[in-house]
Amino acid sequence: MTVRELRVSLGDRSYPIVIGAGLLAASDALAQLARGRQVAIVTNDKVGDLYEARLSGPLAGAAARISIRLPDGEVYKNWASLDRVFERLLQERFDRQCLLVALGGGVIGDLTGFAAAVYQRGVDFVQIPTTLLAQVDSSVGGKTAINHALGKNMIGAFHQPRLVLADVETLRTLPARELSAGLAEMIKHGAITDPGYLGRLERDLGALRACDPTALGNAIVRSCEIKAAIVAADERETGVRATLNFGHTFGHAIEAGAGYGRWLHGEAVGAGMVMAADLSHRLGLIDATVVRRLSDIIGAAGLPVRGPLWPFERYVELMSVDKKAQQGTPKFVLLERLGAARVQRVPDEPLRATLAACTG
Amino acid sequence: MTVRELRVSLGDRSYPIVIGAGLLAASDALAQLARGRQVAIVTNDKVGDLYEARLSGPLAGAAARISIRLPDGEVYKNWASLDRVFERLLQERFDRQCLLVALGGGVIGDLTGFAAAVYQRGVDFVQIPTTLLAQVDSSVGGKTAINHALGKNMIGAFHQPRLVLADVETLRTLPARELSAGLAEMIKHGAITDPGYLGRLERDLGALRACDPTALGNAIVRSCEIKAAIVAADERETGVRATLNFGHTFGHAIEAGAGYGRWLHGEAVGAGMVMAADLSHRLGLIDATVVRRLSDIIGAAGLPVRGPLWPFERYVELMSVDKKAQQGTPKFVLLERLGAARVQRVPDEPLRATLAACTG
Repeated sequence: MTVRELRVSLGDRSYPIVIGAGLLAASDALAQLARGRQVAIVTNDKVGDLYEARLSGPLAGAAARISIRLPDGEVYKNWASLDRVFERLLQERFDRQCLLVALGGGVIGDLTGFAAAVYQRGVDFVQIPTTLLAQVDSSVGGKTAINHALGKNMIGAFHQPRLVLADVETLRTLPARELSAGLAEMIKHGAITDPGYLGRLERDLGALRACDPTALGNAIVRSCEIKAAIVAADERETGVRATLNFGHTFGHAIEAGAGYGRWLHGEAVGAGMVMAADLSHRLGLIDATVVRRLSDIIGAAGLPVRGPLWPFERYVELMSVDKKAQQGTPKFVLLERLGAARVQRVPDEPLRATLAACTG
Repeated sequence: MTVRELRVSLGDRSYPIVIGAGLLAASDALAQLARGRQVAIVTNDKVGDLYEARLSGPLAGAAARISIRLPDGEVYKNWASLDRVFERLLQERFDRQCLLVALGGGVIGDLTGFAAAVYQRGVDFVQIPTTLLAQVDSSVGGKTAINHALGKNMIGAFHQPRLVLADVETLRTLPARELSAGLAEMIKHGAITDPGYLGRLERDLGALRACDPTALGNAIVRSCEIKAAIVAADERETGVRATLNFGHTFGHAIEAGAGYGRWLHGEAVGAGMVMAADLSHRLGLIDATVVRRLSDIIGAAGLPVRGPLWPFERYVELMSVDKKAQQGTPKFVLLERLGAARVQRVPDEPLRATLAACTG
């Protein structure tokens, strides 16, 4: 694919998203940012062994370069890992002008972004997402966080990267399960803003799951466009950005209830979207055919379409610590139709019916 | 004293500083902010026992109210204390619309502000400083942080409060040593921006140390005016705000080297300002008489005027992890004359001479 460049427009916090094949070894944008600075690559062993060496070219002009390897997995997106980053940066005397480079999936990106948000009250960072989910969603928009034992992403900051580099070549080594998890967020983008895009995803699912670079590249560009526009309109999620949480109220409950890491985030969002669509139908917003179609696409993407069989009270308990909850009452992103979403509270009865119909 | 209100002008992050006697029990501004929200007062046992009950009136309209008590002291300005705050907020299901109230000195203010900066990616907070140092300096301007074992204030954020309430009545119970520590920052404000104010402080030191409410109130107002103007001009410390670190490169080294809590921050800044003035003189910027006068004022305020007797290398080592250091080279705030300061690097020789002359 040809290299494509988008822009997240946020005034003096604007930044480019560069999407292409083989970018890691040849990014001028990264080379320019790194020149003369202390640079720390934060990654995990798996991704680091595969791709870190490719950054040698772009980082050749750095004043110093260190590598910080963290254990792989959502359970390590916590304070202990964050403190390892801080300790290393302080030991190496990294100053306020340093640059952090997040090389990995959502866990590495969220954690490194948060480290950059609070190290010496904020330093620059670059996102180099190596999973599909991170390329289309978590690396764009500046949401950074770590998990707390009592809730996912509860400790964090809005801190925009200076650059996002999405190299589709890194997806070749991605396990099928993680590719599907990324498709979940892309389906979400289509469902809440662009039925035409959802239709193209539906049509191309075979090519996408086979990791066809053209199909993937085009879809990544469209997802990033959608995400970038929403973030530019509402950086701090006081309005429309909350619709990006379609499927996430249920999804976060599933992730937390099962124990972080059992369900991939995208898997939980997959089932969560079906549940949110079902709930939208029960509230009279969309037809049953739309719920069915969305459920079929999600299933065909290799994602679960049902949540775990837990009592109603357990779901409510788990959902009421979600960040979208206000004073203990969870909010849901509902579909008004394909391509349009809104956020609202929901009465117990339809919620109970959805949980009965969509779990187990 | 009559109630005075200043404003920190930062666009949509602007906020009032209200200064007066007896404000805690009768603040309309606080009552308005708290109405209908979940409110958490973060304080320590000493200050909480003395003053928390006074907030009952202004917080009567809150949707929920909890008290989080932390141990007292700089050594507790760390992750463990921060996590106690998060844990409690999550247990009590505090949402993104909650309000944190920092009731205490700089440790409580810095830590609570940082908790507010990162809890659910940012919630509102109010500063109710109960020490002189916090009233004139640390509560204004949105610098929040915790300490790391490898450096003071290394983990933090810029997060402006919604309101600062400085009640001079709370200073009556302040130990003399802490009153002096606050005077250090006030002397700093005069030294770097306003020789007339420095002269008034010099004249009124007796009344100030005797906790005379009129003298204290007037000086607090002037210090807050100076601080507010600098913060409004340079919120994120890319320029003039760095001059507020006059005395702090040496001061932070003294605090860290002695072990946090041995020297009060203001005490270390007191000695640090004498050292920075001495260094300014050695670099040909100010006369020896200015150094002497500043040293006399600082001494008369009840503050140390000399640093600990440590080898040159130890000071340099301690100073090079300071946040103002760039790639290991410390920067110093120097006086160009009384009322004007600048930031720069300094050669070894005059630094060595200053450390020899001003320590032990």
